[in-house]
Amino acid sequence: MEGMMKAIIKAEAGEGLKLVEKPIPTLGENDVLIKIIAASICGTDKHIYEWDAWSQNRIKPPLTTGHELAGEIVELGTNVKTLNLGDVVSVETHIVCGECEMCRTGKGHICQHTEIIGVDVDGAFAEYIAMPATNCMVNKTDIDPKYISILEPLGNAIHTLTHFDIVGKSVAIVGCGPIGLMAVNAAKALGAAKVIAVEVDDYRINMAKDLGADVVINPIKEDVIERMFEETGEGIDVVAEFSGNKYAIEAAFKYVKLGGKMSLLGIPAQNIEIDLAKDVVFKGIEIYGVVGRLMYDTWYKVIGLIQANALDLDKIITHEFAIEDFEKGFELMKEGKCGKIVLFPGGLNE
Amino acid sequence: MEGMMKAIIKAEAGEGLKLVEKPIPTLGENDVLIKIIAASICGTDKHIYEWDAWSQNRIKPPLTTGHELAGEIVELGTNVKTLNLGDVVSVETHIVCGECEMCRTGKGHICQHTEIIGVDVDGAFAEYIAMPATNCMVNKTDIDPKYISILEPLGNAIHTLTHFDIVGKSVAIVGCGPIGLMAVNAAKALGAAKVIAVEVDDYRINMAKDLGADVVINPIKEDVIERMFEETGEGIDVVAEFSGNKYAIEAAFKYVKLGGKMSLLGIPAQNIEIDLAKDVVFKGIEIYGVVGRLMYDTWYKVIGLIQANALDLDKIITHEFAIEDFEKGFELMKEGKCGKIVLFPGGLNE
Amino acid sequence: MEGMMKAIIKAEAGEGLKLVEKPIPTLGENDVLIKIIAASICGTDKHIYEWDAWSQNRIKPPLTTGHELAGEIVELGTNVKTLNLGDVVSVETHIVCGECEMCRTGKGHICQHTEIIGVDVDGAFAEYIAMPATNCMVNKTDIDPKYISILEPLGNAIHTLTHFDIVGKSVAIVGCGPIGLMAVNAAKALGAAKVIAVEVDDYRINMAKDLGADVVINPIKEDVIERMFEETGEGIDVVAEFSGNKYAIEAAFKYVKLGGKMSLLGIPAQNIEIDLAKDVVFKGIEIYGVVGRLMYDTWYKVIGLIQANALDLDKIITHEFAIEDFEKGFELMKEGKCGKIVLFPGGLNE
Amino acid sequence: MEGMMKAIIKAEAGEGLKLVEKPIPTLGENDVLIKIIAASICGTDKHIYEWDAWSQNRIKPPLTTGHELAGEIVELGTNVKTLNLGDVVSVETHIVCGECEMCRTGKGHICQHTEIIGVDVDGAFAEYIAMPATNCMVNKTDIDPKYISILEPLGNAIHTLTHFDIVGKSVAIVGCGPIGLMAVNAAKALGAAKVIAVEVDDYRINMAKDLGADVVINPIKEDVIERMFEETGEGIDVVAEFSGNKYAIEAAFKYVKLGGKMSLLGIPAQNIEIDLAKDVVFKGIEIYGVVGRLMYDTWYKVIGLIQANALDLDKIITHEFAIEDFEKGFELMKEGKCGKIVLFPGGLNE
Repeated sequence: MEGMMKAIIKAEAGEGLKLVEKPIPTLGENDVLIKIIAASICGTDKHIYEWDAWSQNRIKPPLTTGHELAGEIVELGTNVKTLNLGDVVSVETHIVCGECEMCRTGKGHICQHTEIIGVDVDGAFAEYIAMPATNCMVNKTDIDPKYISILEPLGNAIHTLTHFDIVGKSVAIVGCGPIGLMAVNAAKALGAAKVIAVEVDDYRINMAKDLGADVVINPIKEDVIERMFEETGEGIDVVAEFSGNKYAIEAAFKYVKLGGKMSLLGIPAQNIEIDLAKDVVFKGIEIYGVVGRLMYDTWYKVIGLIQANALDLDKIITHEFAIEDFEKGFELMKEGKCGKIVLFPGGLNE
Repeated sequence: MEGMMKAIIKAEAGEGLKLVEKPIPTLGENDVLIKIIAASICGTDKHIYEWDAWSQNRIKPPLTTGHELAGEIVELGTNVKTLNLGDVVSVETHIVCGECEMCRTGKGHICQHTEIIGVDVDGAFAEYIAMPATNCMVNKTDIDPKYISILEPLGNAIHTLTHFDIVGKSVAIVGCGPIGLMAVNAAKALGAAKVIAVEVDDYRINMAKDLGADVVINPIKEDVIERMFEETGEGIDVVAEFSGNKYAIEAAFKYVKLGGKMSLLGIPAQNIEIDLAKDVVFKGIEIYGVVGRLMYDTWYKVIGLIQANALDLDKIITHEFAIEDFEKGFELMKEGKCGKIVLFPGGLNE
Repeated sequence: MEGMMKAIIKAEAGEGLKLVEKPIPTLGENDVLIKIIAASICGTDKHIYEWDAWSQNRIKPPLTTGHELAGEIVELGTNVKTLNLGDVVSVETHIVCGECEMCRTGKGHICQHTEIIGVDVDGAFAEYIAMPATNCMVNKTDIDPKYISILEPLGNAIHTLTHFDIVGKSVAIVGCGPIGLMAVNAAKALGAAKVIAVEVDDYRINMAKDLGADVVINPIKEDVIERMFEETGEGIDVVAEFSGNKYAIEAAFKYVKLGGKMSLLGIPAQNIEIDLAKDVVFKGIEIYGVVGRLMYDTWYKVIGLIQANALDLDKIITHEFAIEDFEKGFELMKEGKCGKIVLFPGGLNE
Repeated sequence: MEGMMKAIIKAEAGEGLKLVEKPIPTLGENDVLIKIIAASICGTDKHIYEWDAWSQNRIKPPLTTGHELAGEIVELGTNVKTLNLGDVVSVETHIVCGECEMCRTGKGHICQHTEIIGVDVDGAFAEYIAMPATNCMVNKTDIDPKYISILEPLGNAIHTLTHFDIVGKSVAIVGCGPIGLMAVNAAKALGAAKVIAVEVDDYRINMAKDLGADVVINPIKEDVIERMFEETGEGIDVVAEFSGNKYAIEAAFKYVKLGGKMSLLGIPAQNIEIDLAKDVVFKGIEIYGVVGRLMYDTWYKVIGLIQANALDLDKIITHEFAIEDFEKGFELMKEGKCGKIVLFPGGLNE
């Protein structure tokens, strides 16, 4: 498809993003062109906006930002046989090599040749995006596409939560940003005995409660380790870590139960110090580092949960904006007074 | 404790049960005496009542029947240190040897030296029962004890359902007797994408729908294999078999999906004929034979689910009787017009 | 590469194969051209030679036969970046779609759109074959390429054996054709406590003993169930089934231990009759249907075992022929007086 | 049995041990009396001898030391039904409560009420020991009992090694004390592709090579991280940590491969500092804390390996002494110029 489109780009090194007109992407033979219906803002987008140290190192402007999206397929590459025009899809944002040992053994999520849309290659805050057909997951429900745009971060939550068995277990959700909030909600939907969230921000504490947390601990106001033992007796069966906060992680090693499990998705900026003898070896615990979503087991799980209507996605999306108003979204992200924020390249439905 | 108590016994070979007075059981040093609050009727009890071929072979009258119970601990054996007078407990009904390879490797549920209460030794349709302390699971919630009496069959349902991952998967629940009905309800509570029940009886078809089945197929009226593919496209991810019906089981091998899973709890009376090449080998499926409950992993899971209030147990118990009216319960069981029926040795609370 | 090559083809419906000259295959952009060094004969090739019922239904002549191969890459498709000219490779013989749910979730071995070389598309009994680059596994050892040609069936043996834990377990290898023989050898190399093979043919009984079987039972001369219990006391921990024989499979359900495991690779021509209650449910066993090799986990395992020099591959290959002498190989296969037979399109090294 | 026996005890706070005469232990009803044939020296015994900080805190003299043993049952408690006089046994050294959640769910190895023989209660450097019957594993082979005495530490090695799949994988064995040496040997016997040991002491470097290590890296002389990548290309699949050395553990987090696994048995005295983001989360690795042996899965595995004669136990035991010469053993332990040292309460066989 020829022509121009709106896109939010990092135009050059430095803070901020810019809405511009740029050409609609061209297609490779294994790609599809997606007309984006909804694209949600991730914490990563905020880092790129703010041009933090990580961004300065990783991002090569000019770049179309954004990676969480729902859209409709409007053009098919010449080799594409399994997708159809008109399919509404969400997309796996990791474009992997398909040829390394990791990719060939079902571990594409840790492929070292991964390119991430909106980070390494042009992304989703735009009217159109070209994606490899294999990255597309077709939505077969009649769910509003705005929810489809958040399946990618929901996949992170589900991958983190379901690596270990949580049925009938006590589960700590550490950090209630949007992914943590999804995990709170999913833990309840998947049979956790007790869901205890850890969060410092009042807005998100309230969201966590509303999404089903049995208890929310604010580590600024309470001794989180002591409180975990009060609530559980013997510590937490499964810790799902989303905060990336050094102190939150170190505390989790203290309150995880004998034989407990820890899934770690949050990315700490500092080293972590562990009493490995006491808190790992003698406790006999298991720890799992989580990268994105299993490709594509996690996607099939997430889509199954959507099909079952098992989650309260309506409570997780708190704000919606036309793409032109993206600055309002980033402002809210900065303040943390939001759940998930969705941008609509085609404008808000009204 | 000395004295006499009411008990429903198989007095001698032949059909029927009898309510009698007999001595309160004596305690071994590792036992506790439980005052029974509620005892629910299992299909096994019906077999014993009816004196079918299995019963004639296995049961040695006189025997106090019944094995699903909730009660209060009223006396402690001299070695018992981990339980307290006044604890409300449910009990694992398999009394295992603790010394064989199975028991020593976490597989006590398939110990060959198992004695089952109400089958091999005196059971739960009585005012009191003596149980090994290790078979007791203390209830720490304020849930009505009548629900505690059905944790044992609920454990069967949960063991069957959770052996394979059902999150976001299509699940077939084959047979909607009380355990199948619990499985329907639990599958929804544990994140199945779509729960399809198979049942012939209208009363239980309605219960299955009420407990959350997305679809119920009546194999007498519909082609179950065809319908399963209609509902799922590619077949069922996880089959949980509770019917023990030869034809239902053989059909399940046909509609289970490529790479699918089958957990088999139902006990067929006849041999099963399988096209092993086509339906097992080439499909790459996995099959698991389920005996009772994992001792005691399943119990901790079930109790966690009770703690989370994740299930609709109130819909599963359909009838309650004082122990004196047990004949009414067995009559209903015969007709199949019931979910779970609970007997109260101390009379109904009114 | 242009030109003609030798190839063994099924020229038309009916018994037998024919050595012909035909054009060297052309390459797709994602393919490589492999000059075949060694190609080994599989039981499937024998079925095709004999034109049995399965072959009549599946094979569309003219077709180059054969699928187990080692060769050197002599030409690269334009898109191929991860392989190099001169690489010595073995190949996964299943060419899968890469787009279905099975392929996308690490279960490509049960992709329903699989094409098998030498069965559905031209195969390996030839001087050259074109293969998708992703199907190639590069050999980085200095092992003789003839051993590389048998990695594919060895992968079947390893997939079957390692699905369940065999460390310190009793293992029954049922059927000692070449794959069963490899499994005997591998079971010893992977820490099985006791390896008991089942085989009727004296030549292969002797091979099984030579490859490490602790016991070989001939079910024609001995009661295999009784003998298994004599050898193990309580039955077999892990059954690996390679015979596809109805009676051998039915017997295995009898001698598998409580809580035991069964991996089934053999393809029975008739239905199997099982006492599911007694032999599956009450025993609490697990059963797994095995199709080919996990793509590509099994390949990495097999190559690791080759790297470790853990197996006696030299004892498994019993005969070698120039491709022109293929009839001698098929004759031996018919008689069963062989282990693995390898054909050399370039002639024997002498 | 009445009478006196020889025993090596920690008589009072302070360095050293003393050989004394003390009464033969009395039996509880669930115990057996074992006449000790062989008892091997563990690093823990050395700590107790040296009266280090840990010992001062844990050990309450007077105490009979030692916990690794083989012996013959010479008396049975009144409740013991599964063992016989004359049985040669090895013993699990953890006496667990059997009643906590861990014990009831197959995780007795992390029971918090564990008492360890030779540490918390009287141990094995004596002529007799009383043990709970359930802690005994009967030896049914004709292997020399001295090898039976080292099954307990061998169980540690096997538990550590087999938690993750090592078939065809690269395995690093970090620390070649006796347990690490056993792990080197077992890794080869269980199909590891390449076994790379890390050790600083020349005596043990040589032992590691002799027991099958493909490579031994001395981190004092070489850059262990760099060398690991040289040997493997992409890092180590499975790390088995036995050293408890802070720097060795921190290095292992650097050379473990993407998607790799770490089993940690060694007990570091200091905190460990980890770049959790880079080395755990982004790598997607799994970590497992290992305590002793799975009760009793590990034991059954170890005994299966003994039955298969899969290990070179003869190379692991380097010295044997009559119990009276125990000081010689501890002297060698101090110097590290030994593998496993076995003491014989009945004197050396000559």
